[in-house]
Amino acid sequence: MTKPSKSKTRISAAPKSAGTALLSRSCPPSAEAGEKITLAHGAGGRHMHRLIHEIFRPAFKDASLDLAHDGALLDAQKGRLAFTTDSFVIRPLFFPGGDIGSLSVHGTANDLAMCGAEPLYLSCACILEEGFPISDLGRIAQSIGRTAKAAGMRIVTGDTKVVERGKGDGVYLNTAGVGAVRFARPVTPSSIREGDVLIVSGDVGRHGAAVLSVREGLAFETALLSDAELLWPQVRALLDAGVDVHCLRDLTRGGLATALNELAQSSGLGILIEEESVPINGDVASACEVFGLDPLYMACEGRFAAFVPEHDAQKAVDALQGPCRAHPPARIGSVIGEHKGSVRMRTRIGVERILDMLAGEQLPRIC
Amino acid sequence: MTKPSKSKTRISAAPKSAGTALLSRSCPPSAEAGEKITLAHGAGGRHMHRLIHEIFRPAFKDASLDLAHDGALLDAQKGRLAFTTDSFVIRPLFFPGGDIGSLSVHGTANDLAMCGAEPLYLSCACILEEGFPISDLGRIAQSIGRTAKAAGMRIVTGDTKVVERGKGDGVYLNTAGVGAVRFARPVTPSSIREGDVLIVSGDVGRHGAAVLSVREGLAFETALLSDAELLWPQVRALLDAGVDVHCLRDLTRGGLATALNELAQSSGLGILIEEESVPINGDVASACEVFGLDPLYMACEGRFAAFVPEHDAQKAVDALQGPCRAHPPARIGSVIGEHKGSVRMRTRIGVERILDMLAGEQLPRIC
Repeated sequence: MTKPSKSKTRISAAPKSAGTALLSRSCPPSAEAGEKITLAHGAGGRHMHRLIHEIFRPAFKDASLDLAHDGALLDAQKGRLAFTTDSFVIRPLFFPGGDIGSLSVHGTANDLAMCGAEPLYLSCACILEEGFPISDLGRIAQSIGRTAKAAGMRIVTGDTKVVERGKGDGVYLNTAGVGAVRFARPVTPSSIREGDVLIVSGDVGRHGAAVLSVREGLAFETALLSDAELLWPQVRALLDAGVDVHCLRDLTRGGLATALNELAQSSGLGILIEEESVPINGDVASACEVFGLDPLYMACEGRFAAFVPEHDAQKAVDALQGPCRAHPPARIGSVIGEHKGSVRMRTRIGVERILDMLAGEQLPRIC
Repeated sequence: MTKPSKSKTRISAAPKSAGTALLSRSCPPSAEAGEKITLAHGAGGRHMHRLIHEIFRPAFKDASLDLAHDGALLDAQKGRLAFTTDSFVIRPLFFPGGDIGSLSVHGTANDLAMCGAEPLYLSCACILEEGFPISDLGRIAQSIGRTAKAAGMRIVTGDTKVVERGKGDGVYLNTAGVGAVRFARPVTPSSIREGDVLIVSGDVGRHGAAVLSVREGLAFETALLSDAELLWPQVRALLDAGVDVHCLRDLTRGGLATALNELAQSSGLGILIEEESVPINGDVASACEVFGLDPLYMACEGRFAAFVPEHDAQKAVDALQGPCRAHPPARIGSVIGEHKGSVRMRTRIGVERILDMLAGEQLPRIC
């Protein structure tokens, strides 16, 4: 509760009497090195406005943010829109191949892409813990702005809250997104048909393994980076190639196995995959081996499953591959009429077994 | 890390070997009394699906929630849409006149109304702390569902994350909303004109005072309830009455004084208010007196400021009053050509003074 440095400001700054237990009247912070978030940054007053003008607005500058009003007006769109949201609580905030800022854009942009929608508009809300370094917030804001630009999304609205020390963990983010549906037919679990081919867009489990590696201090011969990536370009390639896409699903928490179980349940069909067809990076396999984890349950942040009819399968693989993908897509299975609502896997030794949904917690706070 | 009760489930439940330090394989919870949130509820697997199916889906049942896909498809809308977001970290979670659930709907619905938009679609994301009682989550979810129904909003998409004990505070919510703009002219700070009349839609500061009263254990002769309320019906009344609305702003964190300062700055005009015209409930004034707080800086969650041309002022007051409002609207000031970018108040004793933006923190975690 430092005294204001300018008495003029104090006199004019209004609350009629300052109960110091409840009312801090310190001056707004300058964005100097070592500065920390205080509860006043969440009060809606001068400190918060300074945070917005000094941290968020410059970082989101390519994104036409209108922070002067309660909400944003969007351009009128023809046709249907998609709408989605995600909160992000990943630990650590900075990991190999990304950070909570880039992740928060990828997560929501990718959920829109999975609806067959081009990502257009983004909201960004943060819950900051008292004491969080403003310099780290600046890095995260820069990362959000950069990733939104790469995604072709405009950050149009936001919110900032601050909680007391010990009631948060640095920063939690939420993004919501609005996109324009570009596919003529619905891209949704209920469009999945018996006989559909199942393709994964690249190798699975690298995001989980990369986060695990920094948490546990693992070192690999080559750097193990998260697979975090924007998915709309690959989805757009399917659209441009004229592939009749039935369903798309990104492989996040719970990994490939959990995503496929959700789809088997919501489509009411069975899914059979071939273990040896699932692309898994060697370092990911090693990390999983060490910790007794299954890569089929490891989170990705830049991979998805696509369900397409047999006659479009090769066209889909070619479109997903594009000119130069380091981690190529693969055809890993198909939709079957038996074992409705469940997923089965033919193992390397030729045995077929149930691949169930994740039952507990494999790796907390992965996104 | 309790053993699964059904070995069949365990055998089929997949992760190939269970490193118990990282992988909890306990059974999904039943929704029994005393049950708590665990990290597994945030893992994307079986526990989370059960939470969605047993808690969220029934609570949001009137709201056509499609939880089976990554995002929601919205009906095509003619004209412009508004889009907004807010996070909610209020303490305590349940307060006189509302709870974090109803607040999270009011906050976002009201931000849309302030853009002149009818609230239509809502997302709902929660960050749960390990150990939070599932029964309380159920109450909050019911409150969200009930309030969304009252607001005419469909809850169409959501997200759940869980953080470790001590890294949160029970539950934090985020909502984002999409609405359809119903006013032909832009309702925005840049539409404010010199000479505009400033009207508040009801008495100010009750939300802040109500939360303060439970935190501090104050008792009033009559129950002091939050003013939390949906604003679209009053905004709709302005529209139906043909009022030429220039700008609307809800009075949340930082209260009336902070909201008016934001508008003075973004419009580049001056605002002059009359202290004795500002409606303040007697209990609110008393609570503020006790704690040395200024009601003009106390948060509301169901009040807004409206800027309208002089010739429409009485029509606007009548429309806001409607047939039976217990807390009537009031004309409290006007937009002036002098003192550009700042707010001045003529006090009860006739002195004019600057009413500045909140400089510190009056009451943390008020929304």
